Amino acid sequence: MYLCLLLILPLYQYSSTMSFIEVAEDSDFSYQNLPYGIFSTLSNPTPRIGVAIGDWVLDVTAVKHLFSPELVEKCIDGQTTLNALMGAGRPAWTEFRNTLKKILSKDDPSLQNNAGLRASALIAANEVTMHLPAQIGDYTDFYSSRNHATNVGTMFRGKDNALQPNWLHLPVGYHGRASSVVLSGTPVRRPSGQILPSPTATTPVFGPCRLLDYELEMGFFVGPGNKFGESIKMEDAADQIFGMVLMNDWSARDIQKWEYVPLGPFNAKNFGTTISPWVVTMDALAPFRLPLEPKTDPEPLPYLVEKDSYQFDIKLFTAIQGENMTKPEVVTSSNFKYMYWSPRQQLVHHSVTGCNMRPGDLLGSGTISGTEPHEFGCLLELCWKGTKEVKLGESGEIRKFLKDGDDVIMTGYAQGMGYRVGFGKCTGKVLPAQQV
Amino acid sequence: MYLCLLLILPLYQYSSTMSFIEVAEDSDFSYQNLPYGIFSTLSNPTPRIGVAIGDWVLDVTAVKHLFSPELVEKCIDGQTTLNALMGAGRPAWTEFRNTLKKILSKDDPSLQNNAGLRASALIAANEVTMHLPAQIGDYTDFYSSRNHATNVGTMFRGKDNALQPNWLHLPVGYHGRASSVVLSGTPVRRPSGQILPSPTATTPVFGPCRLLDYELEMGFFVGPGNKFGESIKMEDAADQIFGMVLMNDWSARDIQKWEYVPLGPFNAKNFGTTISPWVVTMDALAPFRLPLEPKTDPEPLPYLVEKDSYQFDIKLFTAIQGENMTKPEVVTSSNFKYMYWSPRQQLVHHSVTGCNMRPGDLLGSGTISGTEPHEFGCLLELCWKGTKEVKLGESGEIRKFLKDGDDVIMTGYAQGMGYRVGFGKCTGKVLPAQQV
Repeated sequence: MYLCLLLILPLYQYSSTMSFIEVAEDSDFSYQNLPYGIFSTLSNPTPRIGVAIGDWVLDVTAVKHLFSPELVEKCIDGQTTLNALMGAGRPAWTEFRNTLKKILSKDDPSLQNNAGLRASALIAANEVTMHLPAQIGDYTDFYSSRNHATNVGTMFRGKDNALQPNWLHLPVGYHGRASSVVLSGTPVRRPSGQILPSPTATTPVFGPCRLLDYELEMGFFVGPGNKFGESIKMEDAADQIFGMVLMNDWSARDIQKWEYVPLGPFNAKNFGTTISPWVVTMDALAPFRLPLEPKTDPEPLPYLVEKDSYQFDIKLFTAIQGENMTKPEVVTSSNFKYMYWSPRQQLVHHSVTGCNMRPGDLLGSGTISGTEPHEFGCLLELCWKGTKEVKLGESGEIRKFLKDGDDVIMTGYAQGMGYRVGFGKCTGKVLPAQQV
Repeated sequence: MYLCLLLILPLYQYSSTMSFIEVAEDSDFSYQNLPYGIFSTLSNPTPRIGVAIGDWVLDVTAVKHLFSPELVEKCIDGQTTLNALMGAGRPAWTEFRNTLKKILSKDDPSLQNNAGLRASALIAANEVTMHLPAQIGDYTDFYSSRNHATNVGTMFRGKDNALQPNWLHLPVGYHGRASSVVLSGTPVRRPSGQILPSPTATTPVFGPCRLLDYELEMGFFVGPGNKFGESIKMEDAADQIFGMVLMNDWSARDIQKWEYVPLGPFNAKNFGTTISPWVVTMDALAPFRLPLEPKTDPEPLPYLVEKDSYQFDIKLFTAIQGENMTKPEVVTSSNFKYMYWSPRQQLVHHSVTGCNMRPGDLLGSGTISGTEPHEFGCLLELCWKGTKEVKLGESGEIRKFLKDGDDVIMTGYAQGMGYRVGFGKCTGKVLPAQQV
């Protein structure tokens, strides 16, 4: 036991800030980031754990001899998803990250000075195929941006009744569809469904969605979770959150409008949810905490009160590139700091009934809108329910909702001094509706 | 290929109606039924496929030499859930069932006349431990009983606005929580959450649910499913449904009332959903088809029209046994035939957007209420929103909603001539709320 502590302590204390791998200042994948993903290569098609750094992916299985045998057995060997690592909990996460920090440091020779190992363990990022980072048991989506909820409420119920009575008391959310959570790059087909053909119609028609939208969100993956019938307490919530990804919660606004009363969105959402492949850990995001501003008001019920309430300063962007455009044009520039309810509050509220959370469960933030019009996180808000045109930069193209062939590209990063902790891309192209 | 056909054909044509195993007339598990489940025993704790017949469970792995090598490899060997069998599709289901029919027939010697094999393959039902029949990727719950929707709507919005405008046009449903689907016998803890303390209150309090309810439902398991971006057509829907179970969709009425606008029920449902362990196949239920009566009116949109619309004549019961009662007392006597939307329509509607369904996905019917008061499928209807008392038989006990310690026992069967195709029990006891 004593020997074991001696072996582990140096890792925890490791403090180098530089890697022997060069990383551009504007790269999402700095040495300070080290996000985890699941990848494969042409020569080894078995999905396995990788770490993004600069333009490289570190194959963790190739350097597993540099991790403790316990971590290798529990979280690395034979793992084709991150679920085992997610389930291993905070001490394992810390050891895993510290080991990586050491391996990639400019002060450590084990990988740096071993040409053969470098050749097998460091793979050019453009040569890997990424896979879903986790087997997602359940996916839940929240609605936790006050600006977004207020905008949508104002459009549909007027300014005085914008927020529903419960909104300021609990993080409103709904269970989503896990099977159709897909990885960035997967084309998403325009859904067909029941739609009211006019504002005064009372009988629906069947056809392709006419009001297809993106929603700029972030998602987080759950750690060890809780037993059925128990609940996660606020003081434990931060240790139950493994890391975050970008998320596009594709939405069929016309299908939703007809179907959602009284049980919530269903077919309007279940045709696809896209996430970015690299999971950025909460450790990497820790330096970018911001005090929650403005404070939650009214004070939430005690089970939702955090001693230390904070959000993260993560710049978020959505760009659209239509089929005839030469480059993507940014339409949303938002920030995760605008969230009213935090991921910890979402998780605690979700499990307060005794609902069991499992490693790899995905919880979405809800559309993240800022206060200014260019910060609105979906086309519904940007075009204000179809009353305004959204210009796609200088391309000459305009949108109200998405067209077939549009590529929707989400990006995001936290800006450090001379480095970024970024998320890569979350993209998806709109395919035409099925012929029915 | 020709040889293969010769080998398989006799199974398909097998027509004996009697088993060498004696089954009581009122047993749920007749030779005509043969439902599938996952079980283990003290001496062999590995979960494996079993078949219920009378008071026995047939260990399929112990008689696997009597199945085709293809079935053994694909659906039996090493399977700890029914997912592989569910995903194998209709031809495999037919072959599997016909093989079982043959093995258990009084005309077949292979098991009947082999005392050693009988001793190892037939296990007394009271000696097995049952497990969840499938790994449930996603769980969806519908709201497809017109009587139930009308009753609930009348209570909350008055008789003239009972059904929402969309209800007669589509099977309204919502995504549920898969992690908290538990097996019959698992105690379910009374959830805590946000509740409005009085009808006029606008600020919630936190505490144990005061209006805990059961919902009498049936669930079905999806077969092979569809690819992301495609959809299941009505003509293929019946072949995409593997089998059915009883389901208790526990509901916290007070939590639901406060939280559900605008995104639907969330914490009011995610604390537990109980299913019965034996999956009754659609083949076993086929003799109990009933023409849909009354017909769907208005005619649904073409994608939801069935050439041959039918429901099933399945008698359904819910009984409650309080802690001080000597036996359960029936409070609901309903029937699956009352469903307005069929399982095929639910499945087709769910996937029409391109939402991919996977083997083992669970779809719930929604509360199944008949037209008469004793046929109402939940306490909310039976006590008419708390305005009436529900008598528990001659026990002297009354309920409006569930008390701690109440055991809720659901049963159901289709009645044949001298035999039943039944579902066994779906039970769960209410545990007191967590101390928070």
